Amino acid sequence: MINVVAGIDIGGTNTIFGLTDRDGNILSEASLKTGDYPVFEDFVNAAAAQVSDMVKGAGANLLGVGIGAPNGNYARGTIEYAVNLAWKGIVPIAEKFRDKLGVEVKVTNDANAAAVGEKVFGGAKNVGDFIVMTLGTGLGSGIYINGQLLYGHSGFAGELGHLVLVFDGRVCGCGQRGCAEAYVSATGICRTALELLAQTREDSVLRKLSCDELTSRHIANAAGDGDKIALLAFDKTAEYLGRVIADAVMFSSPQKIFLFGGLANAGDILLVPAKKYANDFILENMRGSYEIEISQLPAANAAILGASALIWEKL
Amino acid sequence: MINVVAGIDIGGTNTIFGLTDRDGNILSEASLKTGDYPVFEDFVNAAAAQVSDMVKGAGANLLGVGIGAPNGNYARGTIEYAVNLAWKGIVPIAEKFRDKLGVEVKVTNDANAAAVGEKVFGGAKNVGDFIVMTLGTGLGSGIYINGQLLYGHSGFAGELGHLVLVFDGRVCGCGQRGCAEAYVSATGICRTALELLAQTREDSVLRKLSCDELTSRHIANAAGDGDKIALLAFDKTAEYLGRVIADAVMFSSPQKIFLFGGLANAGDILLVPAKKYANDFILENMRGSYEIEISQLPAANAAILGASALIWEKL
Repeated sequence: MINVVAGIDIGGTNTIFGLTDRDGNILSEASLKTGDYPVFEDFVNAAAAQVSDMVKGAGANLLGVGIGAPNGNYARGTIEYAVNLAWKGIVPIAEKFRDKLGVEVKVTNDANAAAVGEKVFGGAKNVGDFIVMTLGTGLGSGIYINGQLLYGHSGFAGELGHLVLVFDGRVCGCGQRGCAEAYVSATGICRTALELLAQTREDSVLRKLSCDELTSRHIANAAGDGDKIALLAFDKTAEYLGRVIADAVMFSSPQKIFLFGGLANAGDILLVPAKKYANDFILENMRGSYEIEISQLPAANAAILGASALIWEKL
Repeated sequence: MINVVAGIDIGGTNTIFGLTDRDGNILSEASLKTGDYPVFEDFVNAAAAQVSDMVKGAGANLLGVGIGAPNGNYARGTIEYAVNLAWKGIVPIAEKFRDKLGVEVKVTNDANAAAVGEKVFGGAKNVGDFIVMTLGTGLGSGIYINGQLLYGHSGFAGELGHLVLVFDGRVCGCGQRGCAEAYVSATGICRTALELLAQTREDSVLRKLSCDELTSRHIANAAGDGDKIALLAFDKTAEYLGRVIADAVMFSSPQKIFLFGGLANAGDILLVPAKKYANDFILENMRGSYEIEISQLPAANAAILGASALIWEKL
């Protein structure tokens, strides 16, 4: 009987399930609409039943369940005050799944899960000090120090998206101003493009899109066609990203920084200038001490791989 | 025969020596003018002779030498590209002292030494995750994670003074713009006071001082007398400090943050508003997870205690 781990990625819209083996192969996948379960107990019942069905269907032996969730707290096994989920306050998700399934259950946030996935299945297998930055709707991060994921005293360490980047700058979803994630994310580059449209009179295809329509994909496509505003938006975003990377290097001095997520997939148009800016911003004695790379996790399965890696890394 | 460790604090102007015992008592002290030794070998000869004399004078047994120095690299035992020292490039200081004195020698930068001192002799004896911030001419920091000082891949981790605080902000000594140390330091508060003098028409005793004359001590004294500009300068500095503390908490989520150095000695006028601002800036799930305190190391001996703690922590 093959040994498997269930990886669960809980998002505000969908919850995705996958069974993984030790080599990071996905044996089966499924999903639920998270919003269909406003009562936490109902969600646990449905999700645990889903896992049981999948394990039975695969004729496999379940070793454990790894969960990536917004505001997941590894030390306490809880989800705490997640604004995009219906379950308010603190919910003891690890305990509830453990009661239902009788196996070890670990939970952390999605960016930490991405970092554990990079360590177990990706480009960080032999790297003890690294940071994964997830450039999606927001900016998440998971930080490894001396071969261990950094949770800190609160269990919530590694929130690079809420480092101050611009004092009294753009309003962030967290309620503060100037957070890195308001600049270095798929939504952040859209805000940068809008600012550039406002500040210049440069012609651009982006002028035909409303604020609500504009996405980072439009900007990437326009940049590919040589649109000056789009190219400037990428350069400015690379400068902001370089500053965040410089901050991260100045703090924990990792050997590698992995970029993951939609915006990271833009590739060299972001990566090449970001490397230059980061190096400019870093103190002389740390220049050249780190590398910036694209994540080696397959984008389609990264959330499942990351969540299940929470269990595999212990085995 | 009493066992002692020699603590050496190398500064651009003075190098200070002290013999310490296991309880942090200083048995004897001495100093040299660092600038008298532009040739590194001459410095090592003079400093090692000084240590030998002190040990002989105390009738003690030397267990090791701990050195705090600008850009001290713990892993390599070197001082690297220190702008305020005459010895250019990389100098192998630990090896040279070891050859002369025949004991273990450890080197790190002064802020890291302050953190090790706090761990061995100060308020962090039973704390595994903490940060010491030294608010002097610049802003230094030493970071403990899981009971270990964070050196990182380069050996130079923990440079909170060069996190970006204001994008494209004040020019910093490192050549970059907007670094935290250009705002949160004894020199930073002077720059803030000058800005406030320029921006307002408020009467202030600080208007009688030239830029070159103005010190953080003048501002602290004026604030004590109720001078509005001085009070505003402290409030603004506390806001900047709160942001840096928030960044540090968002990164590594320490249990305690210790403030050390001249500006920290201003006490409640800085500490009370800094605590409020930091809490405002921190993500909800980390609020209340940390404490901000004044360092428990005696200011006069902190550099010696910190440097010698590099050896004592290993024994």
